[in-house]
Amino acid sequence: MAISFSLQELISIVAPSKTKGSLNETSITGIAALTEAQPGDLSFLGNLKYTTDVPKSAASVVILPLEYDGEPNANQLYLFVEKPSSVLALICGQIEQRLWQRPAPGIHPTAIIDSTARLGNNLHIGPFCIIEAGAEIGDNSILEAYCHIGRDARIGTDNWFKPRATVTDYCVTGARVKLFIGAVVGGEGFGFETVNGAHQKIPQVGNVVLEDDVEVGANSTIDRARFATTRVGKGTKIDNLVQIGHNCQIGQHCILVSQSGMAGSTILEDYVVLAGQAGLAGHLRIGKGARVGAQCGVLSDIPAGAVVLDSPAVPLQTAKKLMVLKMRLPDLFKRVDTLEKTIETLSQPK
Amino acid sequence: MAISFSLQELISIVAPSKTKGSLNETSITGIAALTEAQPGDLSFLGNLKYTTDVPKSAASVVILPLEYDGEPNANQLYLFVEKPSSVLALICGQIEQRLWQRPAPGIHPTAIIDSTARLGNNLHIGPFCIIEAGAEIGDNSILEAYCHIGRDARIGTDNWFKPRATVTDYCVTGARVKLFIGAVVGGEGFGFETVNGAHQKIPQVGNVVLEDDVEVGANSTIDRARFATTRVGKGTKIDNLVQIGHNCQIGQHCILVSQSGMAGSTILEDYVVLAGQAGLAGHLRIGKGARVGAQCGVLSDIPAGAVVLDSPAVPLQTAKKLMVLKMRLPDLFKRVDTLEKTIETLSQPK
Amino acid sequence: MAISFSLQELISIVAPSKTKGSLNETSITGIAALTEAQPGDLSFLGNLKYTTDVPKSAASVVILPLEYDGEPNANQLYLFVEKPSSVLALICGQIEQRLWQRPAPGIHPTAIIDSTARLGNNLHIGPFCIIEAGAEIGDNSILEAYCHIGRDARIGTDNWFKPRATVTDYCVTGARVKLFIGAVVGGEGFGFETVNGAHQKIPQVGNVVLEDDVEVGANSTIDRARFATTRVGKGTKIDNLVQIGHNCQIGQHCILVSQSGMAGSTILEDYVVLAGQAGLAGHLRIGKGARVGAQCGVLSDIPAGAVVLDSPAVPLQTAKKLMVLKMRLPDLFKRVDTLEKTIETLSQPK
Repeated sequence: MAISFSLQELISIVAPSKTKGSLNETSITGIAALTEAQPGDLSFLGNLKYTTDVPKSAASVVILPLEYDGEPNANQLYLFVEKPSSVLALICGQIEQRLWQRPAPGIHPTAIIDSTARLGNNLHIGPFCIIEAGAEIGDNSILEAYCHIGRDARIGTDNWFKPRATVTDYCVTGARVKLFIGAVVGGEGFGFETVNGAHQKIPQVGNVVLEDDVEVGANSTIDRARFATTRVGKGTKIDNLVQIGHNCQIGQHCILVSQSGMAGSTILEDYVVLAGQAGLAGHLRIGKGARVGAQCGVLSDIPAGAVVLDSPAVPLQTAKKLMVLKMRLPDLFKRVDTLEKTIETLSQPK
Repeated sequence: MAISFSLQELISIVAPSKTKGSLNETSITGIAALTEAQPGDLSFLGNLKYTTDVPKSAASVVILPLEYDGEPNANQLYLFVEKPSSVLALICGQIEQRLWQRPAPGIHPTAIIDSTARLGNNLHIGPFCIIEAGAEIGDNSILEAYCHIGRDARIGTDNWFKPRATVTDYCVTGARVKLFIGAVVGGEGFGFETVNGAHQKIPQVGNVVLEDDVEVGANSTIDRARFATTRVGKGTKIDNLVQIGHNCQIGQHCILVSQSGMAGSTILEDYVVLAGQAGLAGHLRIGKGARVGAQCGVLSDIPAGAVVLDSPAVPLQTAKKLMVLKMRLPDLFKRVDTLEKTIETLSQPK
Repeated sequence: MAISFSLQELISIVAPSKTKGSLNETSITGIAALTEAQPGDLSFLGNLKYTTDVPKSAASVVILPLEYDGEPNANQLYLFVEKPSSVLALICGQIEQRLWQRPAPGIHPTAIIDSTARLGNNLHIGPFCIIEAGAEIGDNSILEAYCHIGRDARIGTDNWFKPRATVTDYCVTGARVKLFIGAVVGGEGFGFETVNGAHQKIPQVGNVVLEDDVEVGANSTIDRARFATTRVGKGTKIDNLVQIGHNCQIGQHCILVSQSGMAGSTILEDYVVLAGQAGLAGHLRIGKGARVGAQCGVLSDIPAGAVVLDSPAVPLQTAKKLMVLKMRLPDLFKRVDTLEKTIETLSQPK
């Protein structure tokens, strides 16, 4: 990867409060963790638990918090700032703009666009994309290769879809929505009625609406509603391989970590977090700001602000207490053995 | 979404036993839950736990069970039927036929079809599909965009594959099979022998057979057998992001909910249900009609008709009892503390 | 599937130490498990627990371990070898070479290859593949249909990518890497900073490196690093629907079974095994050769060689003991009830 900053550029981005040491090199060509950095690399102390790695680092430049107290090695430059990880994000933002540039506007000749589709201005539509009849794509949106937009779907402005993203018929996205590779928005809901021993599909005639600033990770799947709408609220971020069942209602600014899943019709209020591999039964309501732990199995409603763990889910404090007691079970069994022996002795006629 | 029914049409579909109230509007333009319906919408009472939502609903038309006792608001029509959810399915079926019409027969010019492939009559083959040498596609089947059918694969009649479905070499589907977006039928099995510290692939030379009426959800993966066949029985429905390992044998009319997974060579007899995120070890037999709960981890055979929960799985009654006792552990520890103190007092010489 | 071996060929592959019985047929046309084999099939006894299935098998030829003591049926041939499953792998390897031949070299006319891409010799590049600017493909590599190689990505020699595999910008693969259908190498990492209540993406400017002989299963997702590299070590095999978060460092010869997941920055040393649906929190170190059980939830570092189970993970021995005690909880509650009654009796003044 062709990261390259002149020392001057770097210092102008970092804007350090003070510096220590000096460097012969005049450019930085990589970023790495403290212990893995080589000469030519930039590194940083983002978490104080790695403080002892600083003096051992071979990085040419190290971004450090103001309170760090130590001297650089020879040919090494320390840059002191208030919040190293924010400064790193700034630098990475610069790199992103250079190395992951927005594709230029234009429609690839292999894209298949129905004549009734309504295309906004300044679009990038990549190779092998398909846009079906009646679909609408908002201004400044990017559809990378192999994206598929269904009939009468409406894509907002400034969307960015990575390769192989799918938005099926009648689904809608707001502004600045990002879909990652292989994301499926509007899969058919999974609902059956069993008639004479065979599972008959219940028609699934709703859609999916993703509000502004939603992101959906690679190979995640969001099913369209049985009727009406499966909705993902403004600013909610969904990681890879997540499943959202039909008719779920997800509030604003939620976070759904990888491999979590929601059965149908469950509601997340705003600012809910589902950690990795968490699973929610259907028809539940998870209150505002609740946090559902990794691998947690949720079978009933959760009040606003609660933190739950375990499967089935219990409040964090209960889960922690039960975990401690569980580890003390072997001891408890021994104590009961002892009690029984003692009682037997006491009960014997003297 | 352009749902629109004239009131007349709607009443002829619903065929109500009786009606109450009257409506100025002459058409219905949406379906929504009771609490979310707006004027112009149809709603329904499918589950009696929502009965109190009925009088508050702004829906123009509400489908109600015969036993519902209440009066409509002004400009609101109640339609009484025996089973509102079946009637809703009827209506949705009508909508589905209008809004998700079968694609018309025809082969898109961008599809790449080997000259040795045998194509049935009345096929729809969408853009960017690929059909490899020797493959066979049965009459009336639909392959939407980007579908890939491997060498010598045999696709039955009336199949409907959504975009990006894959059926690899030598795999076979029965009649009326549905594959959803990104489903992978016939991935390479995951089997290795470790030789001198390196994992050597064990060749995987079997196939996958999906019998009649099987459905496979978005981005789910079914591996081909090490030898012989990984089989999914007639009428079995598989949700999104499900994993089926090589050589699994799945019976008829099973249900595999999202994110469940089966390791290699495990057998599901007919009518087994795997709830969401359930996981089954390899080489097991799950008896007819058994139900495996959400997030359940199954490490041994399960008898027919059993219901299991927890990880590792235990029978439902045991799981419930253990869950109750687990929640009473803090109390149990206190009781043992008390017993020990009492015993100590009793044991002391008086 | 057109498996066909003449008996002569078969015997020359098997090289049996001794044989019993005789066969009228002169060819073998299938492989099946003992209980499912039909005349014309080859079967084998790979696991002694199936020994009683041998005399009942209708297979024409059965490969048996030397110590098997029994007589074939009429028109049935037993071939005795030291290790039947190794011999079966040999036969399957022959079948694989016949039925899953390497695609011939050549570039399909529908592939879109940037003029600045550097292509090695003897490549197969399938229909609808895309190779972006500056990408490099090593000699003898195979990209089946719809593969997408990002800008400046570097693909090693003898790679084999199944349809729809994606390697994003700047990512790198070693020699003999295999990607299965829908695998995503280099998805965008999932990292946000919450600013005024909205989740701002932290730029993700690293890449993914897959070392030699790595395999990645169908629809699995590997995120690129926040900076530097998400690395998968030589010989590591990853199953279907697995998630690897940004900046993970996976050692050599690890095995990650289906639906397992690793949060960001976690380290697997060499020879670690993650069983199905296991989940690892971020920033952990899992020691060399450690084994993480199915559905295990790992929240802290694991020492080399350890075997852990349960969620949260505990050592195998502890997990087994706790499982036994858990099943004895109902009894323990009764014992404490009894103790309390006894004590009450003893405490009463006589």
